Parts: sequence; C-alpha cells; structure tokens
Amino acid sequence: MKKGSAVYDNIRLMLPGPTPVPPSVLQAQALPMINHRGKEFSQLLSEAVEGVKWVYQTKGDVLLLTSSGTGGLESAIVNVLSPGDPVLALVTGEFGERFAKIAETFGASVDRLKSETGKAIETDEVKKQLTQKKYKALLITHNETSTAVMNPIEEIAKAAKERGILVLVDGITSVGVVDLPVDEWGLDIVVSGSQKGFMMPPGLAFVSVSPDAWKAHQEAKMPRFYWDYSRFLLFADKGQTPWTPAISTVYALHRAVELLREEGLENIFARHELLTKMVRAGVRAMGLKLLVEEDRIASRAVTAVFPPDGISPHQLRAKVQEKFGIVLAGGQGGLKDSIFRIGHIGNYRPADILIALAALEVVLREMGYEAHGGVEAAQNLMSPVPA
Amino acid sequence: MKKGSAVYDNIRLMLPGPTPVPPSVLQAQALPMINHRGKEFSQLLSEAVEGVKWVYQTKGDVLLLTSSGTGGLESAIVNVLSPGDPVLALVTGEFGERFAKIAETFGASVDRLKSETGKAIETDEVKKQLTQKKYKALLITHNETSTAVMNPIEEIAKAAKERGILVLVDGITSVGVVDLPVDEWGLDIVVSGSQKGFMMPPGLAFVSVSPDAWKAHQEAKMPRFYWDYSRFLLFADKGQTPWTPAISTVYALHRAVELLREEGLENIFARHELLTKMVRAGVRAMGLKLLVEEDRIASRAVTAVFPPDGISPHQLRAKVQEKFGIVLAGGQGGLKDSIFRIGHIGNYRPADILIALAALEVVLREMGYEAHGGVEAAQNLMSPVPA
Repeated sequence: MKKGSAVYDNIRLMLPGPTPVPPSVLQAQALPMINHRGKEFSQLLSEAVEGVKWVYQTKGDVLLLTSSGTGGLESAIVNVLSPGDPVLALVTGEFGERFAKIAETFGASVDRLKSETGKAIETDEVKKQLTQKKYKALLITHNETSTAVMNPIEEIAKAAKERGILVLVDGITSVGVVDLPVDEWGLDIVVSGSQKGFMMPPGLAFVSVSPDAWKAHQEAKMPRFYWDYSRFLLFADKGQTPWTPAISTVYALHRAVELLREEGLENIFARHELLTKMVRAGVRAMGLKLLVEEDRIASRAVTAVFPPDGISPHQLRAKVQEKFGIVLAGGQGGLKDSIFRIGHIGNYRPADILIALAALEVVLREMGYEAHGGVEAAQNLMSPVPA
Repeated sequence: MKKGSAVYDNIRLMLPGPTPVPPSVLQAQALPMINHRGKEFSQLLSEAVEGVKWVYQTKGDVLLLTSSGTGGLESAIVNVLSPGDPVLALVTGEFGERFAKIAETFGASVDRLKSETGKAIETDEVKKQLTQKKYKALLITHNETSTAVMNPIEEIAKAAKERGILVLVDGITSVGVVDLPVDEWGLDIVVSGSQKGFMMPPGLAFVSVSPDAWKAHQEAKMPRFYWDYSRFLLFADKGQTPWTPAISTVYALHRAVELLREEGLENIFARHELLTKMVRAGVRAMGLKLLVEEDRIASRAVTAVFPPDGISPHQLRAKVQEKFGIVLAGGQGGLKDSIFRIGHIGNYRPADILIALAALEVVLREMGYEAHGGVEAAQNLMSPVPA
C-alpha cells in the first residue's frame, strides 16, 4: 500500500458507513487463516453469531452472509416471496426505493407508499393502505440513510402483523444503534451489515429469520441458491456456512461483539442518542437547517444538513476534508447538490462530534458564513449549565 | 479472540482454500477504513483490479464482487442466460454439479456430461454432444477441486466457441495457478475467488466478462440485482463498486497482486507445477494410490490420495493435524470416506510439501503402514541425482 498511504494516517470518517473500526477489531483480521470446516472455526462462528443475536435481541435464527447489506436485502426478498406476490414498500428515500426495486426485479407486485422528503412514513397511512389489498409482505427501512429519517417501525410492524403480513426490515443502519427488539416487535426478517453499528469493516451481512418467515420460506418460489436460507440453516447447526465465509471478517465480528457486550445495549443506544442530539443542537446553533426537523423521527445514525445559502455542500465537504481530514457524506439521489450528511453510527464518541462541529465552524467562517456556538451547544448537552 | 487462540500459532493449512495468507497481506487488512466513494479508494481499487486483469491475462472487463466464489458462479449464470436456455454442463465432480445446479435453479434447461470419477472430460465427447442441440452456454470447471482433476479447457472452449456457444468457466482454483489466458482462449466469463491462487482471505470473487458475454447480458432475462454486471460496469469506470465492497479485503488484494507481480506469472505457474509433481511423486513413492492417475489431467491446486487399505482417511487427517498442526482436506460427496486431499494452491513453497510428506510418513508408520521414500522422491525433483 505504498501510493497514497498518508490518507490512512490522518483520516476521520464521519460517514454513515463505512465507519471507523476500533484498533483491536482491525487487528483481529490479521490472524492467520484457519479451516472453515474445522472445530475451531465452528466455535468462533457460533460465538460471533450468538453476539449478533444478542444485538438483535432475538432467540430466533440469525444467518451470516458474505456480502454487503444490499445482498442481505436481496436475500430477504427471494427467500420468502414468490413472483406475483403483492408487496407494500414504504419508501422514505434511496434505500427504501432500492428495497422496492429488488422485490420488483424478482417479480413481486410492488405498491409504494412514499413519505415526503425528510418526513417519516405515517402509521395511519400504512393502516389505510393495508385495507386496500391483501399484501404478502411489507418492506420497511428503519433508518433511511439518504434522508436521515427514522421510521416508527414498532407501530407499523404491529399493524402489518395483525393482518398476517410479513414484515421485512432494512435495519442496516439501525441494528446496534437504536432499540430494535426483533422478537418483541414481531419482525420477520431484519437485515443489517457489518460496517455500521457493528463497528466493523464491510463484507458481512446479517439476517434474522422469524418462525413466520421460515414458514413463508417453504412456499416461496423466487429462485435462490447463494442466498438460500435453507442451506444456511443446515450449516448453521454445525457452526458453519454453506459457502466459504469471509474468515478475517468473522475474526473482526468476534472481537466487535466482545466490545459491544462490554458497553451494553442500553449504553450503546444512549450514546447514539446523545451523539444525535449533540449534532442537531450544534448545527442548529450555527443557524443551519436540518432536513429532518422533527427530533422524534431523526435517525440516530446520520444527520442531514443544508449548508447556508450560497455555499455548495460539495465545496464545504472538500474543505473540511482538506483542512481536518474529516470525511463527511454528500447527499444522494435528488439531494445530491443540496445537503451534506454527518455520520455518527458505530464507534463514535462525543469527542468526535465536538471535533466535527468545530471543524464545520472554522470552514463555514472561511467560506464567509459566520458560524458560531455549535460546539458550545453540543458541550452543554454533556454537562448542562446550571439554570 | 481469547478462546482457542493457540490454534492460530501452530497451524499449517494444506487445504484447497482457504490457504495460508502471506503476513504482509494479512497485515494490510488492519489499515483504517477509508471512504469507498472517495478518490483514494478509487485509485486503490483500480490498481488492484488492474492486477487481477494481469493475472487473468485479459484486456477485457474484470468485476469485483463481495461474495464467496459460489456467488461468482451464480453471477455468471444470471447475467448471461434466460429461463429455458439450453445449457451443457460438464460435470467432473461436486463443483461441476454445483455450477449445473445453479443454472437449473434459475430456470436453464441443463444437460449434464459427466466424466468418470478421477477422469477429465474428453473433448471428443463434448464435440459429439454439441452437435445434438443448439446450446446457449457451456459450463466448465477448470480444476475440479473435489476430484483433483484438471479439464482440458483450451480445446473444449475452442469447440464451443466455434459453434457460437458461450463458455462460462469456474476458474476458482485455477486462476493464478495454471496458465489460463482468458482472451487468447476466448473464455466468456471466468470466475475466481480471493482465497485461492490470490493468496488472500476469502470474501471477494472476481469475474472476467468478454464482449460476447456483454452482448448476451443485454438479452439475458434471469432476474438479478446484487449480481447485475451492468451496475458493476457503471461503477467500475469510477473505480468503485455499486454496493459497499469489503474494504479490508481490497487492501489485501492490493498487496497480494504486488506479491504476484513480483514473482511473475510464469514462475507462479512453474512453482505450482513443481509442487504438484513433488506431492504426486512423494505419495506414489510411499506406495499410495492417486485418485487422478494421469499426470496430464492432475490439478495443480490439490492432490487426492487414497490412504492404504484399512486406514481411515478421517483418522489419518486427525493424527496429522494433532501431531504436526497440518490441516489436510477430506473427501467430498461420494468420496468422503475414501480419500484425503493435499492442497497446494497459493502461497506454498517446496518446503511446505516436504514437511507434509514427512508428516504423512510418520503418521502412516504409526498407523501400521510402512511409508518410506516420499520425502526423498520429492527432494529429487528439486535437485535430481546425477544419472
């Protein structure tokens, strides 16, 4: 890694994935290969998957796929649906649209219920739509990363499950970030990816599979081989996967769940909530506008911000990276030229947010906008000033 | 990685994948995450893919998938075929059968041409079969890992291409092991995986795509999203992948192709041929029988051996691992209880073969079989005794 290697030594990723990976998780990947059909790997994988189940708050099955999160979404569709099945897709942005598109690609008959940009899906709208047709499955993105919106998944899932509709969840940027008790809320398949709340490099996807999902799987006729959950289940009992897994990434997972267990789920959720509040208070104090105005539906993984009038989000991000090594995310799709996004999912601490806000202030002022008070507003959330 | 960690410090994998990864490749994975949409990653990925193209000996497109090799096989099928397409699958063992099964799963009409166990497919048989029907594609496993057979791919591909039939190749254990000039031999899609000749951890698959394959892709109607080559091509031009790739594994790839380039393709092929000859001469000298008797069709990645009468291959492998930390592979499918396999694909040197043969001699003698002369026979191939 000779060329351009300086970038690795002065970088502060603040993306909604990939996110910074703790040193001991990175280092775990450097262990030698072992036999993926041997008993040592079985033990390692079983322990790692137990950790994932703990994060998912499920006693059901969790399968480990060697793929990115999008592969996990595809696996959810093809394992429980048949061509022609009526599906309701809740679309809050780019990732909701992707989930819908995958279902269409494999022949599902997809109706879309869309929210306004920056708004969440309303449960009442969903309830109304569910009376229109006998849907087989509901697709929902818990945290829509492109708009930084969190959907009210508990209520929506309840409405669907009451009607016997499968609930398939894109939890890629919510699992291990915000409370998502899979069994308690009756979620049938929840997909997540390694490079998000799990604080790992990308390369693995996880899927939880409920008893109802297994039942649907038996009847589902969409073609599948690499993603076939039956094959995964067969090997899961032996602490294996049907195809050679990304062994180094499993080492990383094993270490990452140790770290997550040390911190504890409640602390992890509270930390992400604090970081979210700090970012929102900080940019608001600078006078910037948030894409998601309502705190209630704000993603705990990423925050979408409009730059001040006349300042390009692309230039702003470039300057922040140049001056501070901080990598912010751009907008996606129709929001490409209008917003920037601050990621705070995974291994972030309050210090990271304070640095990001401080950097934003410096760069905005350089660009002619008098940004002040952001750092202070965020500090105050950590140790509120006496009344 | 507290529990069972001793295994990492005294292990000599001799599997046909995963294979031992050079230390600098393992360590490359421990670098921090960078933005997979940033210019540094673009450069890194482009350089790494250039290296893969060099190994493939192609000027055409090579795409990088985050998946195991089986995902690569699935991608080859769904990107160039439509349901109902007539396909001829050449089946030499478990992996040939897997390729055929994937095609069937997605609706192809598959005829199988099988070889006897331990034999290669005969080109004349293929030619005869090709006159029976207008096939759309031919599926061929270059090195069939389950039986340690290498198929005569050059002649077979020529026969198919002359008839305008697409040639889809499982090159998972042959790319970077044995000469496979993709462009020169007119191979339309060649699939390989990272944990084989590339001397890397598992987690990435590579596919080369010929102009004829791209043409077929335009018409192909099998459903695809995660594997869709069009999406990959679109992002490849930007030095990106459509979905977040396994970044750490791309770091490993970048380093691995540096090592491969240092050694040079001809030396790599010659080394694998020498290792194969050493193993075969060694076990023959001990009086053991090879599953593949003909040297011409012997895989350069793995060698399949029958233990002496009355000795269980399972017990033999267990004792070799216990005493020497050497992990040999078992048989697969119908060969499960009758053979063991010695892997020599990737980062192996003559010393590794001598150790394996020496270990086999010790353990076989312990088990009551007078094994001698294996090490010496292999040594002699390195420095032949004067005539």
